[in-house]
Amino acid sequence: MKVEGKEYRTVWMQDGAVHYIAQDLLPFHFLIRSTASFRDCCRAIRTMEIRGAGAIGTMAGFAMALAAREAAGGDDLSLLRTARIEIESTRPTARNLFYAVEKVFEAALSGPEMAETRAREIADRDAADSRQIGEIGNGLIFPGMSIATHCNAGWLAFTDYGTALSPVYRAHAEGKKIFVYADETRPRGQGARLTAWELGQAGVPHAIIPDNALPWLMSLGRIDLMIVGADCIAANGDTANKIGTLGKALAAKAYGVPFYVAAPTSTIDVRCPDGAGIPIEERNPAEVLYQEGITDDGRLERIRVCAPGSAALNPAFDVTPAGLITGIITEHGIFDPHKLPLKSE
Amino acid sequence: MKVEGKEYRTVWMQDGAVHYIAQDLLPFHFLIRSTASFRDCCRAIRTMEIRGAGAIGTMAGFAMALAAREAAGGDDLSLLRTARIEIESTRPTARNLFYAVEKVFEAALSGPEMAETRAREIADRDAADSRQIGEIGNGLIFPGMSIATHCNAGWLAFTDYGTALSPVYRAHAEGKKIFVYADETRPRGQGARLTAWELGQAGVPHAIIPDNALPWLMSLGRIDLMIVGADCIAANGDTANKIGTLGKALAAKAYGVPFYVAAPTSTIDVRCPDGAGIPIEERNPAEVLYQEGITDDGRLERIRVCAPGSAALNPAFDVTPAGLITGIITEHGIFDPHKLPLKSE
Repeated sequence: MKVEGKEYRTVWMQDGAVHYIAQDLLPFHFLIRSTASFRDCCRAIRTMEIRGAGAIGTMAGFAMALAAREAAGGDDLSLLRTARIEIESTRPTARNLFYAVEKVFEAALSGPEMAETRAREIADRDAADSRQIGEIGNGLIFPGMSIATHCNAGWLAFTDYGTALSPVYRAHAEGKKIFVYADETRPRGQGARLTAWELGQAGVPHAIIPDNALPWLMSLGRIDLMIVGADCIAANGDTANKIGTLGKALAAKAYGVPFYVAAPTSTIDVRCPDGAGIPIEERNPAEVLYQEGITDDGRLERIRVCAPGSAALNPAFDVTPAGLITGIITEHGIFDPHKLPLKSE
Repeated sequence: MKVEGKEYRTVWMQDGAVHYIAQDLLPFHFLIRSTASFRDCCRAIRTMEIRGAGAIGTMAGFAMALAAREAAGGDDLSLLRTARIEIESTRPTARNLFYAVEKVFEAALSGPEMAETRAREIADRDAADSRQIGEIGNGLIFPGMSIATHCNAGWLAFTDYGTALSPVYRAHAEGKKIFVYADETRPRGQGARLTAWELGQAGVPHAIIPDNALPWLMSLGRIDLMIVGADCIAANGDTANKIGTLGKALAAKAYGVPFYVAAPTSTIDVRCPDGAGIPIEERNPAEVLYQEGITDDGRLERIRVCAPGSAALNPAFDVTPAGLITGIITEHGIFDPHKLPLKSE
């Protein structure tokens, strides 16, 4: 996708290093960071400098490829194993991470070139899947629609195009007049910071709303369609996504708003029978207690927004039961969440 | 209630002036502001230096009493009328505001002393009602319960004691071991700032959670009871309260969590047949786009937390249909929302 006219992917490999858009500084600064160390990649995933289901997967694949190079030409199996464990321990809920690490680890057994090739394939496939999800999801969008989304499942969350926002970009490119409501998505504000920034770059009309507002707008009939991403989909269609998704899905059901999940089939964990089996990450309470942003005179500041002395809980994801999901938009078509295409790759 | 050991009301009248706790500075600074001008009172309500259903009502009554004094001993009817319109235009949704202004306006026709007496009666009654709501609501609370609340319907939102939190304080005073989950309540953060501060002052164990987290905690069975306040209750039991209440009520219904509204009967607008008739305030989008808080070195700062260039919507309240409400806790008992005691006073 384009940033100020220039084409970018969210994360890419070039000249033996991984390069990525530093999402912790967006939307206030646009900066590319680079590293040739898989441990730097792990830190970037953990601190959410890079985040989003597909982008984490691509970064994890590249990290594994960097580790393969570091492992003396792929011969140091113990380093490879250590690296795998380190990368896998960065974010417990993200299905794409485990998928990518497994594939690149297997390739790394045949040497670092194979690992890098496999990692690039994963990145390319993520972008191609996202593009296809946009084509397919676009069929659900009609001119004049108001579309809600939660968190950021745009191109920043994937290698390119995104999932929940990919149909939006496609519809907008075709000239359909649409309006997007971006949930703020506390505590990290991915909707207010990243989705709004992406939509602004693409020229899609939109407004940011507090996470509290969507059920009310739905009750007033102001939302025609909701599309969200997914971090992990269980075999029965239960879907883990950013905390808050469940509440919006309940409201969508109550007010008859079609509620779609958009995700590549690689997000489906066929070995996980239902949502109860998806591990839910608990993140640092400081993410709730403090907020980062920019002052009027351009300084990045971190301020406490909660009562001093009070503690906070910070579950990063929730699980939306399949019964609340109208359909899952994948690169192979739109599926009833109860009838997912289940094959191990 | 006590702040660092000293008894306070949220707003009171003394020596011809209105004194109030400046809630815009809480929880970072505890400061009392004073004024003898009804226009200052209007500004304080509009900017939410004083906020919360009952506290707004008490402040509005005192503002009307100050206007009566200013109106040349109550003889200047046109000033009284102008003041009434100005006070009523500060916050459109708050039922208690209109109730108090009407009562004190009528009293002011008999002179400023009558106006002040009536305003004090309204304040005292608000405190007494809140206390009684605590006694009655306490009957719903059992040791070991986890109780969720949204926004701040504690003593800061009323003259004293509060509504949703009044039963919590009572239960805590009786030694029942309870735990409170305080919704952050974006955009203004009344839960994270005020409810958490109040609970901290009172020594009630609690944690702040993002607004997105409550449906998930409910689905896990971690919430036993939810109590919220109300800004206006229609004759059929539909209840306007802080934006986000509707979404939590839908989740409570889905997961079988008892969902109570706590409010004095003065919050019921018998002339409003149902929720569709309650005007919903739209506030400045800047409240969504920016956040206020305190830096590590103690400076109050205002930072932008949303993508530059993006707009925001800021509806301040939503309407929860009576069918989602288990009961309404009033000073006269707990009522089925469909069977409210309706009498015009």
